Amino acid sequence: MSLLVTGSIGIDSVTSPYGTAEGVLGGSAVYFAFAATQYVPVRLVGVVGDDFPTEFRKLLQSRPIDLAGLEVRRGGKTFRWHGRFKGDMNEAETVAVDLNVLAERGPVVPAGFLDSETVFLANTHPTLQGELLGQLTSPKTVVCDTMNLWIETERDSLLNTLRRVTGVIVNDAEARQLTERTNLIAAAERILDFGPRFVMVKKGEHGSLLVTPEGPVAVPAFPAREVRDPTGAGDSFAGGVLGYIAERGSAGVETLRQALVHGTVAASFAIEDFSLRRVQTLTRAEINQRVHQFVNMLRFE
Amino acid sequence: MSLLVTGSIGIDSVTSPYGTAEGVLGGSAVYFAFAATQYVPVRLVGVVGDDFPTEFRKLLQSRPIDLAGLEVRRGGKTFRWHGRFKGDMNEAETVAVDLNVLAERGPVVPAGFLDSETVFLANTHPTLQGELLGQLTSPKTVVCDTMNLWIETERDSLLNTLRRVTGVIVNDAEARQLTERTNLIAAAERILDFGPRFVMVKKGEHGSLLVTPEGPVAVPAFPAREVRDPTGAGDSFAGGVLGYIAERGSAGVETLRQALVHGTVAASFAIEDFSLRRVQTLTRAEINQRVHQFVNMLRFE
Repeated sequence: MSLLVTGSIGIDSVTSPYGTAEGVLGGSAVYFAFAATQYVPVRLVGVVGDDFPTEFRKLLQSRPIDLAGLEVRRGGKTFRWHGRFKGDMNEAETVAVDLNVLAERGPVVPAGFLDSETVFLANTHPTLQGELLGQLTSPKTVVCDTMNLWIETERDSLLNTLRRVTGVIVNDAEARQLTERTNLIAAAERILDFGPRFVMVKKGEHGSLLVTPEGPVAVPAFPAREVRDPTGAGDSFAGGVLGYIAERGSAGVETLRQALVHGTVAASFAIEDFSLRRVQTLTRAEINQRVHQFVNMLRFE
Repeated sequence: MSLLVTGSIGIDSVTSPYGTAEGVLGGSAVYFAFAATQYVPVRLVGVVGDDFPTEFRKLLQSRPIDLAGLEVRRGGKTFRWHGRFKGDMNEAETVAVDLNVLAERGPVVPAGFLDSETVFLANTHPTLQGELLGQLTSPKTVVCDTMNLWIETERDSLLNTLRRVTGVIVNDAEARQLTERTNLIAAAERILDFGPRFVMVKKGEHGSLLVTPEGPVAVPAFPAREVRDPTGAGDSFAGGVLGYIAERGSAGVETLRQALVHGTVAASFAIEDFSLRRVQTLTRAEINQRVHQFVNMLRFE
């Protein structure tokens, strides 16, 4: 099934205990696309400024990413994020953020993308998520992310979006904040009440959780000795999940369970090096091998 | 194989968002024994005061726990702990603790227990752990726990004990403190350098980790909607692990992997109600059913 992602495309500067990467390609839609294109081609919808480096465009073109929906806004500047990871690196500290073109009007879905069936609405203003979704003619599986800012300031708009999506992928803090429930299963079940058929909760190094009306499924993270840069882990997770769903052409519970594994493995590669350094050379064979290793680790009698 | 545990036997008062339990049976050796006796009989070695209630002795006797090593010290008082759980309940806040008889000399292993083959040294002063171990004639699988206090104040003595044990079961904070490594796999691998053949790291609601020279195995916690009282979760985990090992008569890597599941399930029952309320009526059939459920949850292709 066709897969569309809309989200940020940015220029990142990241510092972790392993070093610093300055002015590198980043953004939720980018990490998502690098993970998801391991499964199916990806249609990218997003906005950059005319300062967006040619080499970044080339990097995107090195994967089966359709850039017909990449708007280069004249006189605009690309979204920039400067973050830092410390200690157990479970949470990014934002040093500086310049929304730039992301603070303006949202992107337009090109005609060729309007029939997209599988859709990931990466974190942005929930009204923009709704507007984008409204442009599509035949969405079948729509999954969204969100963040603390919208939960706090745009709750009604967010609940409107949640009513229209198939699934939600959020982190543990967001699930708790959205539902005011501490227990993550109870929180995810409450999110199901808002409309979606499934909820995935990302817990960083602690793995993730899938909750559907058929009950919860918890998986650990892929055991990692060295995490160099957790930037994009969550969007890579979503890319593995949605890529797998689009490849399978189904979002049934058994597919979602398997998708959880593919999301876990996608995230585990993304964090091995700064920016897209690891995933830009990643092969499907490497993914399959790690999926196999993960599945075997979890095989008990 | 015969299974011996030494640790605290106490009178607890616990408050959680679900209520309060005052003056209830607790202690590391007790939680361990209730979990482990689902697999094999348990030999209990510990000290209480002459204030130890008859009903608590009867409760212990309701399980196949050999109390020949339970010393009732005349004029002494039983260990008491008053704890409180809040928020996500991942950590206990100690309101008050009276070591009482635990602050005096350690327990003596009765003659009938000296041939014990599987041994769990619950958290206590590492020198006492070493002395107890020294009394045994044919220990085969010895596993110890410890705590932040001993890591900080008795490091040499603790390292001495670690050289003599087969395995270590600690929580994430202890693993990090002991090794000064943030990454838990790296921390556990460092503990292997100290002597043990395996390390299990307990992460509360986030599951646990087994590390052996053959690599890491991570499992989630059993998904729980309601945690009423996390007291004893870690010792119940150890009881499930060691009980399973003693039942199987092996501590090979494949047995350890399976034991991780049994520890996870044992802990999941312990936290469902205050003190031993849930586990005192627990059956092996209920355990097997939950093990089955957990194993199926983790079965992927």
